Amino acid sequence: MTTQISALLTHAPSTAFQQGTITRRAVRKDDVLIDIAYAGICHSDIHNARDEWGPGIYPMVPGHEIAGVVAEVGSQVTKFKVGDQVGVGCFVDSCGQCDPCLAGEEQFCEQGAVMTYNSKDYDGEVTYGGYSTQIVVKQDYVLRIPETLAFETAAPLLCAGITTYSPLRHWNTGPGMHVAVIGMGGLGHLAVQYAHAMGAHVTVVSQTRSKEEDGRGFGASDYRAISEEGTLQALRGTFDLIINTVSADIDVDAFLKTLKLDGTMVFLGLPERPQTFSVFSLTSQRRSLTGSNIGGIKETQEMLDFSAEHGITAQVEVINADQVDEAYERVVRSDVRYRFVIDISSMT
Amino acid sequence: MTTQISALLTHAPSTAFQQGTITRRAVRKDDVLIDIAYAGICHSDIHNARDEWGPGIYPMVPGHEIAGVVAEVGSQVTKFKVGDQVGVGCFVDSCGQCDPCLAGEEQFCEQGAVMTYNSKDYDGEVTYGGYSTQIVVKQDYVLRIPETLAFETAAPLLCAGITTYSPLRHWNTGPGMHVAVIGMGGLGHLAVQYAHAMGAHVTVVSQTRSKEEDGRGFGASDYRAISEEGTLQALRGTFDLIINTVSADIDVDAFLKTLKLDGTMVFLGLPERPQTFSVFSLTSQRRSLTGSNIGGIKETQEMLDFSAEHGITAQVEVINADQVDEAYERVVRSDVRYRFVIDISSMT
Repeated sequence: MTTQISALLTHAPSTAFQQGTITRRAVRKDDVLIDIAYAGICHSDIHNARDEWGPGIYPMVPGHEIAGVVAEVGSQVTKFKVGDQVGVGCFVDSCGQCDPCLAGEEQFCEQGAVMTYNSKDYDGEVTYGGYSTQIVVKQDYVLRIPETLAFETAAPLLCAGITTYSPLRHWNTGPGMHVAVIGMGGLGHLAVQYAHAMGAHVTVVSQTRSKEEDGRGFGASDYRAISEEGTLQALRGTFDLIINTVSADIDVDAFLKTLKLDGTMVFLGLPERPQTFSVFSLTSQRRSLTGSNIGGIKETQEMLDFSAEHGITAQVEVINADQVDEAYERVVRSDVRYRFVIDISSMT
Repeated sequence: MTTQISALLTHAPSTAFQQGTITRRAVRKDDVLIDIAYAGICHSDIHNARDEWGPGIYPMVPGHEIAGVVAEVGSQVTKFKVGDQVGVGCFVDSCGQCDPCLAGEEQFCEQGAVMTYNSKDYDGEVTYGGYSTQIVVKQDYVLRIPETLAFETAAPLLCAGITTYSPLRHWNTGPGMHVAVIGMGGLGHLAVQYAHAMGAHVTVVSQTRSKEEDGRGFGASDYRAISEEGTLQALRGTFDLIINTVSADIDVDAFLKTLKLDGTMVFLGLPERPQTFSVFSLTSQRRSLTGSNIGGIKETQEMLDFSAEHGITAQVEVINADQVDEAYERVVRSDVRYRFVIDISSMT
């Protein structure tokens, strides 16, 4: 039996959020029904809600950083039971048959994974995200949130956490490595914590020094400000790995030159415009430019367990459901330390 | 005692080559004096001679694809003896102390390797290249040309060969891999042979089909022409590795999309202008853009031995010393199959 639940909806790219009602499907044999406690606000929610990556499906309920409690399980669910602390990230289904899915990298599913919102599942039903009181998800796409993590600070890990953890692992972050994190925002403040916990020497490269104290608190050994002249020149040949968390246009060549021989620069954000580079910046030291995109279910669970083990969580500002529009404005101005999380109990 | 030898010199960026005389240093204890038999013409010779990568040092004697016979050895030379078949590539010295040098990747020497021509050695002496009758080189920077290779077809391996062999090895080319080679010129025709010999499935992507028969003869299993509509669209998600041998501007995004998940596109040439890409082309399938630059001495020797073992040589057009200006014009128009080699005996 389907259920009507409360949700924050946006009806068009330029309209404010309104509380309303959506329908969740009846719990199937392999489904988990989750009472949502908190939902993080990701910058991509804003791009989607405003149709900047269009075409969006309206009305839209964003939210793919979901933390809550299992309220009901289907007859064949074996991984979870009522009362478990769980999370849902950026996707809620994938084909399960293609090479990436079989390798546990469902985010690269060749059929296209079913995204948590602003997407359609394989039956053609529109998906609605975590700015809502409940969600129904196949057990294979549900994550276990370790008991030692709190819902509100764990929720952002489901997107911001895995987005930064996955490339650090993929490019073998460990002791002896010099890692730069560009940007100290929702992604950056987690990237610093993970890279530090993995044993790397971490340098933050931010616009200004306004977040230096925080950055060093998160584990950065060095902190540089682009606004100061000569910053990138002084860093030439320094890094093994650069994690670029900003979506703004950057001077790609200047950053590439801060890489050592065989160093790698990873884009996590999606700048709107094409970026430019000189091929010489690559060939002269066999450097690489690459990108990463969230992570698979298996690695997301590994990230949550790693976070619990190392005490890594997001630093958040908890808001009520009626503050989402204002929060969006603040995210766009980078005026948040470091992630907004909606207290879903404020909705009902 | 220094020696005066014959060489082809260009005295300014826009002047024709003239036969003249240069001075070679006296053979030091660790030097090898080589009687040059053939010298290949590399496209970079043209960029250097015409000062397109300036500032050039004039008069200039280009040539870094050198094959010949040992004529004299210094008192402490242990690696070579008079009469040995040897070659010299793009550099003739490096610091020997930095991490890249110690790793056998002298091309990335942190002090800057001493290039074979249009460079200065660590004593400040200008270097002159292979368009000349003799050269004096430290034994550690001299390569052994296997007996089964002929000088004229082996000479181009010293630059074009290692430039293509090194990235194929670095990115683990082997059976089961799909490799694309962009461009069927001096570099491309060797890249196809190496990738094929390493066991990969090779596709040439050329402007037209004019060299298709050659390409398949070199070992390509597939041959595509950019001039035909829809070529790159049809190749989406096909390749593990793209070796881009052309220096012209290309549609980077369209080529990136022909890569599989985790695929790599390697630039070998140096386009004059910055290239552009959409970050989404990288993140959507964790693809990489990178570049490679010749190879170290150890790997160059490995490449020569591999070439001998697999019967890989350059297809060349042998010219006399008085045909170099004309050859340059033809290289610029891509009117050569596939490398010009100067018969140095025509000079004296």
